[in-house]
Amino acid sequence: MPPNKGDARWLEAAARLAARGRPVSRPNPAVGAIIVRDGVVVGRGWTRAGGRPHAEAEALAAAGEQARGATLYVTLEPCAHQSPRGPSCASLIAGSGLAAVVVGVQDPDSRTAGQGIARIEQAGIAVRVQPLPVVEASLAGYLMQRRHGRPHVTLKLATSLDGCIALADGTSRWITGEAARAHVHAMRARYDAILVGGGTMRADAPRLDVRLEGLTDRSPDRWVLTRGAAPDGWRALPTPQAIATMDQVQYLYVEGGAQTAAAFLAADLVDRLMLYRAPIVIGAGRAAIGDIGLVDLGTAHGRWRLQDRRTLGSDLLEDYERTPCSQA
Amino acid sequence: MPPNKGDARWLEAAARLAARGRPVSRPNPAVGAIIVRDGVVVGRGWTRAGGRPHAEAEALAAAGEQARGATLYVTLEPCAHQSPRGPSCASLIAGSGLAAVVVGVQDPDSRTAGQGIARIEQAGIAVRVQPLPVVEASLAGYLMQRRHGRPHVTLKLATSLDGCIALADGTSRWITGEAARAHVHAMRARYDAILVGGGTMRADAPRLDVRLEGLTDRSPDRWVLTRGAAPDGWRALPTPQAIATMDQVQYLYVEGGAQTAAAFLAADLVDRLMLYRAPIVIGAGRAAIGDIGLVDLGTAHGRWRLQDRRTLGSDLLEDYERTPCSQA
Repeated sequence: MPPNKGDARWLEAAARLAARGRPVSRPNPAVGAIIVRDGVVVGRGWTRAGGRPHAEAEALAAAGEQARGATLYVTLEPCAHQSPRGPSCASLIAGSGLAAVVVGVQDPDSRTAGQGIARIEQAGIAVRVQPLPVVEASLAGYLMQRRHGRPHVTLKLATSLDGCIALADGTSRWITGEAARAHVHAMRARYDAILVGGGTMRADAPRLDVRLEGLTDRSPDRWVLTRGAAPDGWRALPTPQAIATMDQVQYLYVEGGAQTAAAFLAADLVDRLMLYRAPIVIGAGRAAIGDIGLVDLGTAHGRWRLQDRRTLGSDLLEDYERTPCSQA
Repeated sequence: MPPNKGDARWLEAAARLAARGRPVSRPNPAVGAIIVRDGVVVGRGWTRAGGRPHAEAEALAAAGEQARGATLYVTLEPCAHQSPRGPSCASLIAGSGLAAVVVGVQDPDSRTAGQGIARIEQAGIAVRVQPLPVVEASLAGYLMQRRHGRPHVTLKLATSLDGCIALADGTSRWITGEAARAHVHAMRARYDAILVGGGTMRADAPRLDVRLEGLTDRSPDRWVLTRGAAPDGWRALPTPQAIATMDQVQYLYVEGGAQTAAAFLAADLVDRLMLYRAPIVIGAGRAAIGDIGLVDLGTAHGRWRLQDRRTLGSDLLEDYERTPCSQA
């Protein structure tokens, strides 16, 4: 069946639900599902902590008999593989009485990869696949691991108007205000792992935890970019390229400093750039980003696309995504 | 009479008209005037090239007999001093038949300074003074000269996301896109003088002119911050503080480089900060601003207030004004 506008609206709603599962759904992707009958939501779900129940199973359980003749909107193709933890979602759906299923992204997992959709269609249920940027974005970490074998990487910087992350003597408390700093803590709670450079770790001894009520148990694993040994409570990453070895890390949050930011940028391993900027001038402070090997200004253009811009107190947050043409 | 909302609306409209006179009205301030009768504009004017006619005279000439019983909205107190070039505006108004005059800012010029208002009131015409930020802003250069004996100073910077104004080797063409660069040319056309540092002058040999059709005759005087001699076609400014000697310069546009920007910031002589920022990362490039002597991050806060933020192509323009508490 062809895609349609109504599908997009419900899929986007399912993507928003999916966000509730991030990052606690790991190792499973954070999926969202909504069941709609006659324009009314009769069930919804998102992947729960540890990966079970799956979003579809939860939505079907909520809908019960009302699933009959309804449409399921699900961000990722329902799984086709039975696991020790329960039947596949495709099987559940096949026996659900649903009239149609709309899928955001086909699952690149070889155990599903179209087989989930085939299983559902075999049961006489119509399936539409409707690719949407917002749904892709909601699965970015999972898809990056499946397609490119590495986590999705966010580089976060907090600077003055003139791009400094600290005074020349290293002082960086505080450049941004409370609202921006609270936002950073809320962001950390959505990541599987956080990484800083060795210099930052030694100089600031950052806790890198989530200091927000109700989210303190969400503090991600702490990594340090170093060829040496990591201190207690930390793990060592020898090079940016070694993120390929970060098992079960879908989302990595890189918090600097300048040399670490530069190393990831030079390796073309930054997918998202989050810039917090305070309305202050520092002058001759520490630059946000070290040498990335740029020799031609022309090649610097067209690599970043603004996704969101918002005010946090008197600071500005800009959220940039790498453009598809610069995709690694 | 007390201020009211309707007054504000017409005064703001007069301030927009005034902008047409900037900077060609020099040495006179760019003033705007609107005459309203029964809610209808019957006359308007702005200070013409060279300072004459004055805005009020032009508006009265346009209104003719319709000025009788009408209200004049004028951004600056009408002048009280007769000049060889014509009668004072206060005298013209006194004989105009106007019912009321609403003034945005009292003229700090000692030859007027309340005497314009007194002269009008003596003629039986009601006068209201209604201070408005937008009207003050429209007279910023004139008021700065009268009150502090120096021009109003704008510092313009064009940077990458990480605050660089050039690659390490000095290459800066181009960081921002065409729309941002055209905006800079339009800005230059509104300034009396432009200044760059000696290093920038020698390295870039900038023309600093207005390359926009219809505005090419608006290219401001060119100044260079140097203790030495200025080359042909340029004037030398030995220190930022020496702007106090810039006669008839109401608005000064400082275009960098980093040391010049720092010198003006360190001297607390920047009133407006216009930041053009391109969505590119340079890394280890040239910083936008040199040492301003900042030793305590706390003192950097609260000095700049965002006035406007706009997108120019893929670039961002942010327009900051110094906060009143940091006023020199």
